[in-house]
Amino acid sequence: MIAWKNMDALASYQDLLKADRVNIAEAMFGEAGAERVKSYSVPMGEGMDFNYAARPVDETVLAKLAAFAKEAQLTEKYAALYNGEVINTGEKRMVLHHMTRGQQGEAVVADGVDKRSFYVEQQQKIAELARKVHSGELTNAAGETFTTVVQIGIGGSDLGPRAMYLALEGWAKVNGTHKMKAEFISNVDPDDASAVLGKIDVARSLFVLVSKSGTTLETLTNESFVKDALAKAGLDASKHMIAVTSETSPLAKSADYLAAFFMDDYIGGRYSSTSAVGGAVLSLAFGPEVFAQFLEGAAEQDTLAKNEDLLKNPSMLDALIGVYERNVLGYPATAVLPYSQALSRFPAHLQQLDMESNGKSVNRFGEPVDYVTGPIIFGEPGTNGQHSFYQLLHQGTDITPLQFVGFRHNQMDNDVLIQGTTSQQKLCANVAAQIVAFACGKEDENRNKYFAGGRPSSIIIGDKLTPKALGALLAHFENKVMFQGFAWNVNSFDQEGVQLGKVLATRVLKGETDGALKVYSDLLGI
Amino acid sequence: MIAWKNMDALASYQDLLKADRVNIAEAMFGEAGAERVKSYSVPMGEGMDFNYAARPVDETVLAKLAAFAKEAQLTEKYAALYNGEVINTGEKRMVLHHMTRGQQGEAVVADGVDKRSFYVEQQQKIAELARKVHSGELTNAAGETFTTVVQIGIGGSDLGPRAMYLALEGWAKVNGTHKMKAEFISNVDPDDASAVLGKIDVARSLFVLVSKSGTTLETLTNESFVKDALAKAGLDASKHMIAVTSETSPLAKSADYLAAFFMDDYIGGRYSSTSAVGGAVLSLAFGPEVFAQFLEGAAEQDTLAKNEDLLKNPSMLDALIGVYERNVLGYPATAVLPYSQALSRFPAHLQQLDMESNGKSVNRFGEPVDYVTGPIIFGEPGTNGQHSFYQLLHQGTDITPLQFVGFRHNQMDNDVLIQGTTSQQKLCANVAAQIVAFACGKEDENRNKYFAGGRPSSIIIGDKLTPKALGALLAHFENKVMFQGFAWNVNSFDQEGVQLGKVLATRVLKGETDGALKVYSDLLGI
Repeated sequence: MIAWKNMDALASYQDLLKADRVNIAEAMFGEAGAERVKSYSVPMGEGMDFNYAARPVDETVLAKLAAFAKEAQLTEKYAALYNGEVINTGEKRMVLHHMTRGQQGEAVVADGVDKRSFYVEQQQKIAELARKVHSGELTNAAGETFTTVVQIGIGGSDLGPRAMYLALEGWAKVNGTHKMKAEFISNVDPDDASAVLGKIDVARSLFVLVSKSGTTLETLTNESFVKDALAKAGLDASKHMIAVTSETSPLAKSADYLAAFFMDDYIGGRYSSTSAVGGAVLSLAFGPEVFAQFLEGAAEQDTLAKNEDLLKNPSMLDALIGVYERNVLGYPATAVLPYSQALSRFPAHLQQLDMESNGKSVNRFGEPVDYVTGPIIFGEPGTNGQHSFYQLLHQGTDITPLQFVGFRHNQMDNDVLIQGTTSQQKLCANVAAQIVAFACGKEDENRNKYFAGGRPSSIIIGDKLTPKALGALLAHFENKVMFQGFAWNVNSFDQEGVQLGKVLATRVLKGETDGALKVYSDLLGI
Repeated sequence: MIAWKNMDALASYQDLLKADRVNIAEAMFGEAGAERVKSYSVPMGEGMDFNYAARPVDETVLAKLAAFAKEAQLTEKYAALYNGEVINTGEKRMVLHHMTRGQQGEAVVADGVDKRSFYVEQQQKIAELARKVHSGELTNAAGETFTTVVQIGIGGSDLGPRAMYLALEGWAKVNGTHKMKAEFISNVDPDDASAVLGKIDVARSLFVLVSKSGTTLETLTNESFVKDALAKAGLDASKHMIAVTSETSPLAKSADYLAAFFMDDYIGGRYSSTSAVGGAVLSLAFGPEVFAQFLEGAAEQDTLAKNEDLLKNPSMLDALIGVYERNVLGYPATAVLPYSQALSRFPAHLQQLDMESNGKSVNRFGEPVDYVTGPIIFGEPGTNGQHSFYQLLHQGTDITPLQFVGFRHNQMDNDVLIQGTTSQQKLCANVAAQIVAFACGKEDENRNKYFAGGRPSSIIIGDKLTPKALGALLAHFENKVMFQGFAWNVNSFDQEGVQLGKVLATRVLKGETDGALKVYSDLLGI
């Protein structure tokens, strides 16, 4: 029987508060430090490891975190989730994104169908369409193949799929699986759609309209833009557009679309990269086999997340160290720093995933909590960030925990030897150096050149950013966010905080404003 | 006589701590709120205004901030800076980026030349080259015009120019001044250069190598990549490459470059968008006239920043309200949220500008300070962010001040009417709605749908994102960061915090490691 309790009601949390602080600079020093780096590591499969040597824990803190994991029933809560309990209490919905890539527990039936079968069926329908497009069986009216796929969506229908596409574009090119170029239109700013439409050949483009409800204002507006452009080019829009939506939406059975693929209410936008939302654009761009590998990598992490042993469960461990940093040590933000240019938009996706899931002030019963919850998440790829905001991370007055990601090999075949080392070696040398610099610091009589150290980080080290590795990375962070939500006893699967702005914006557009809102509307020329 | 004192040594700061807190939700309510929005606004010129109605100040706090500005001698310190005093005490250098776009005070002579003349001369040389390229007087060996300009640089040589290019690309296209497409190579990750080289026609590309010292590892490595690609295409690299560097660097007089344009030690990378660093790529991309307008917009803000009256000085006012939010109210981060897709990378540039400048723990004399300094800066364009991390901003446990930017008109001609309004109107309605939602919140018996409000924001409202408006925006934030650095008594113009990582990375590449650093190097396969 699961007890959903606030974190501060748990004896193990109160005990955690009493743990002695770990001095990272000391712990990481010398041979003991070397041993620590070797042992504070959890295999993730696929040649990947989660190394947490430079985070502020020791055997005592880890034991207390394990006790907390047990008392908070994290494993049982995860099982409840994948077995189809109504975990999204705010919206009274199950949470089934794991099922898009595997079945971790019991069969879940909803809306009269087995949900695993439903998601697989959508993948198969997408795969079939993608094969027809790639083979040239399905072409434009002039009999030309489609060369570009354009996703029209916002938030979860944009950030995740876009980050995943960018992560694999280079890999696909050198591996001969780059079937179509993908572009993305998201913002209601009309210049967004204009810019994308200005650089593609609309006659050879397929557009994927993604909206669960079929009513998202930004997305429908951008669809109009695209339809205008197709009409101006003398093309039949219905032969260029695909819908990804729920079965009950107005888009589901419309003749305006070449095909419709379905998602459902059990998958939140920010968790939808492995559903048809990511599936359509990624299968068209890279082929369904690549998308299948991506799902496989995610499924393996989902399985690993079931492990009750905290030290063998990287996403749970990452989650709880994060809770310790946030609630016990009081750090307000976390930076995500992938040493891979392909992951350029991965931090933006995690920013959404994490901040929209756990940026809550009430528990899952709607009662205010007395502790801080989700941190601010931000980040950019290294080494770029080193020449930008790392100054503050090293020498600023606040401490920000860091999540590094690095790969031994780059994705594309090309590299160059300068001063005896390759660029990839330089990239890896930099991330190794940064971890130690943040952890250990450096004494200097000149205080301006002094580094206090004691700045925590972990790193996920992989062999290469392949589709499977990307799926693993994504699922690691999804599951980390889930476990943190369980720990904080919040509902990580609704987003009521986005509603008020929508309501007020609608009021402005209807001219039903007064007070400050009216003046701002006037100033903005609406 | 200027006294460089720590903030907490000033009586006016101690007085500021005693000010009653402003209840934003109350202040913004009803007709009084409407009046506040009308009056809490400072003209910036160029049809732009800085509106701070939703920030946590009132007449009392503003009066105390004005007293603080006076006691901290912010105006005098700015004058000292533009008159050529050695403000960058750590590196013992003057700080002259304002002089790239105008002369606010006395003539400054250094290295035997008048610096204003020096910067203008570089602009003229760049303009001359750009005109030759655009007119077809200067072509590739086959007599074809150059169509693409590729900037090779990192940090300040990348983020600012890239953000500015993206900000004006759409505008230039509809205004007939999009002369060349610009691309950027920055990361030492070899896949970054491979990806860019894979999508351009190298034969018709000009490369701008940007490195002040001529020794930046990432940049030289990427130059090699490009030279390899040019050689493979049978092209003479020296006919395709331009250098932007200091006069004393090895690149300055090398026959490897078609031309060299100069910067100097008085302009930090993150302040170099208005120098030759931004000038070369932006003049080639959009023409020298557009770059000149951009400079003009910046210069006007620099002049405005001289105003001793805090309420008529938007960058100083923005700076001091930020200090109040950071040090008195204790908010650790600030989000930058432009409602303009063209400003997609502007927050990343400000992240560097702000965090690298003011992420310091020591004052300008190298003594530790007893107060917090620069906040974390992050952001994405709206409306995209609304569907991503705004959940936490609205309902998270911490408060994050917000800096909105919005424009009455979009840049490109195209728009579409849906449900009676244009996309641009929807965009503007959303930003107006967000300010009020954050400030005023909403009562709800269901605590999950309750918004506490009291979340501060300001907005810069402009007419359209033109080159002049962009220059104004950039200078506003540069000057804001400068004034905050003065307030905190830190040196905003060095970056010693980036050094340790460089030193350790070099050690890794030489194989001179031990302890934790050696194990990380092994794990990363170096």
